[in-house]
Amino acid sequence: MHAIAVRRGEEAPSLIEKPRPDPADGEALVRTLRVGVDGTDYEVISGNHGGYPEGEDHIVLGHEAVGVVVDANGTGLSEGDVVVPTVRRRPNGSNEYFARGEPDMAPEGQYHERGIDGAHGFMAEYFTSPAEHLVNCPPELAELGFLVEPASITEKAVEHARASRSAFEWNPESAFVLGNGSLGLLTLAMLDNSFERLYCLGRRDRPDPTLDILDDLGVTYVDSRETPVDEVPGAFEAMDFVYEATGYAKHAFQTIEALAPNGVAALLGVPNDWTFEVDGGALHRELVLHNKALVGSVNSNVRHFERAVEAVAALPEWFTDALVTGVYGLDEFERAFDDDDTTIKTAVEFGTR
Amino acid sequence: MHAIAVRRGEEAPSLIEKPRPDPADGEALVRTLRVGVDGTDYEVISGNHGGYPEGEDHIVLGHEAVGVVVDANGTGLSEGDVVVPTVRRRPNGSNEYFARGEPDMAPEGQYHERGIDGAHGFMAEYFTSPAEHLVNCPPELAELGFLVEPASITEKAVEHARASRSAFEWNPESAFVLGNGSLGLLTLAMLDNSFERLYCLGRRDRPDPTLDILDDLGVTYVDSRETPVDEVPGAFEAMDFVYEATGYAKHAFQTIEALAPNGVAALLGVPNDWTFEVDGGALHRELVLHNKALVGSVNSNVRHFERAVEAVAALPEWFTDALVTGVYGLDEFERAFDDDDTTIKTAVEFGTR
Repeated sequence: MHAIAVRRGEEAPSLIEKPRPDPADGEALVRTLRVGVDGTDYEVISGNHGGYPEGEDHIVLGHEAVGVVVDANGTGLSEGDVVVPTVRRRPNGSNEYFARGEPDMAPEGQYHERGIDGAHGFMAEYFTSPAEHLVNCPPELAELGFLVEPASITEKAVEHARASRSAFEWNPESAFVLGNGSLGLLTLAMLDNSFERLYCLGRRDRPDPTLDILDDLGVTYVDSRETPVDEVPGAFEAMDFVYEATGYAKHAFQTIEALAPNGVAALLGVPNDWTFEVDGGALHRELVLHNKALVGSVNSNVRHFERAVEAVAALPEWFTDALVTGVYGLDEFERAFDDDDTTIKTAVEFGTR
Repeated sequence: MHAIAVRRGEEAPSLIEKPRPDPADGEALVRTLRVGVDGTDYEVISGNHGGYPEGEDHIVLGHEAVGVVVDANGTGLSEGDVVVPTVRRRPNGSNEYFARGEPDMAPEGQYHERGIDGAHGFMAEYFTSPAEHLVNCPPELAELGFLVEPASITEKAVEHARASRSAFEWNPESAFVLGNGSLGLLTLAMLDNSFERLYCLGRRDRPDPTLDILDDLGVTYVDSRETPVDEVPGAFEAMDFVYEATGYAKHAFQTIEALAPNGVAALLGVPNDWTFEVDGGALHRELVLHNKALVGSVNSNVRHFERAVEAVAALPEWFTDALVTGVYGLDEFERAFDDDDTTIKTAVEFGTR
């Protein structure tokens, strides 16, 4: 079968041939429909990732997949089910996090991530997966199911942020998403019903397709070149919720000043080392005196995928039409990895339902 | 009646005479038994506080009180009830935080703090309080009820920290209290039943009465002069829960490295401005990849006081005997404000039950 992989020593994805996998006990065989591309894929392609699967000289890309079960193999699934796979897998043997359905909480070394770290991804005509890591979708999501994995990331981050505010009555009105990439835009569309006022940080000039989406969502654009994150309360308003998706480390600290009293920031970016000065006294004091919280969040589990299925199904069609700027077949798969100012979200199409 | 106050322009408490207050509608009159002293009192004494009550040239000290109701004044209380007052009061009119019983979540400007900021404290022979801000204690707590307010601070911080971990199965085993002052020691005694292993950061040499208490509690002492907070995982273990009560701003950031995966730090200190370098990239990344959280916490509400009553009642007698190093009558009240290496927790006694 065809697969899209990065080979050791190369810095671009290639179309390769691999044998079609056989499902082991407890696994189903899935025919891949579409697989989304995101920033993590660029890092895997550039070699900045956790590692090749053991004994392999390549890693099959892709962690945002949707497919159709073609061999249920005695699992509870049915042939024809549209499913989305979760990303983390047991590296060897079990561990407590997988045992209780919370692989997203496993520390480093206690998981592989398909398409990212130590395990092949889903960019192949077929993949196998333990049934417990496949989440059913309505058939109508066969085309957009590749948005479920990124949406699940947001479901988890929002769940953890809300949990941190659950010991008191929290009535948030303003939310501020840092980053106008595909995850930021998807998050804004998901938050649209739970917040009165939405803001998004970016550094783009109009005309720009992401800024057009912000306009259509009714989101206020905050240009970070004019308004640094910590000046947002003065220029706009203090924010009850901040969702950090830039990986720009200064934002994690400036966010403390951007938050309203009793506010919370979910941090999702993964920056490299970077030493800089902060007024640590003022930040510490501000966290305490105004009951603020910072919550780091990575990955997601089946519960978040299930909610993400509902969230993606509820997205307005104009939004997904604008967000997904390209879906490419295997004959032009390279285009799915283009990253220019007209590209927002892309996917590779392996088949149709 | 006698009261202990700081007068404008002075930097030491004085015994003054004030008229005995009359309870207004909804208020009870309380005869004061004991009032504890803590670090916030030192700040008030040194003039580093929110402000004198409007129109006054002095502020009566004291926010950790226990007393007996002597005039229930038609409230639901009964004469003879042993009560502990909460600290925050409506500055004028109501606001949503007081209306729902969460004055601890009110932002600056929407509260006064008795004995600290804009309102007289409880270091007087009598005080009045709205009944809704008085928490009943068992009569046996007449002597130690002044520990309820500091214990309520910990109840709130732990509640908010646990809430932040409530979206997944969190089974913490190790807790690390930064600071071996009276609040740190009280917190360790309160945490004793919910954590397998307790650690406490300090910078004292043996022999020292606080380190003796750590030994008797079975707490491992971490000398910050030998082991900085961020090196604790290597020297001891990574911590599921950190309780920061030093107000030393670098600790708030080093704590991110001290936490175990999925851990949370409650921040309670109130440092002054202090600019320093951090590896913000590494800290941001660590928060995200290991699902860590920082939760600021200030003050406490009636719910926390009610739990604190139970917590203080459950403290072993040897512990409170060792913690409370002095209780002083009005004839020697200055001794309650001594702060030397043999002093841990003191109180002023205004009367007995």
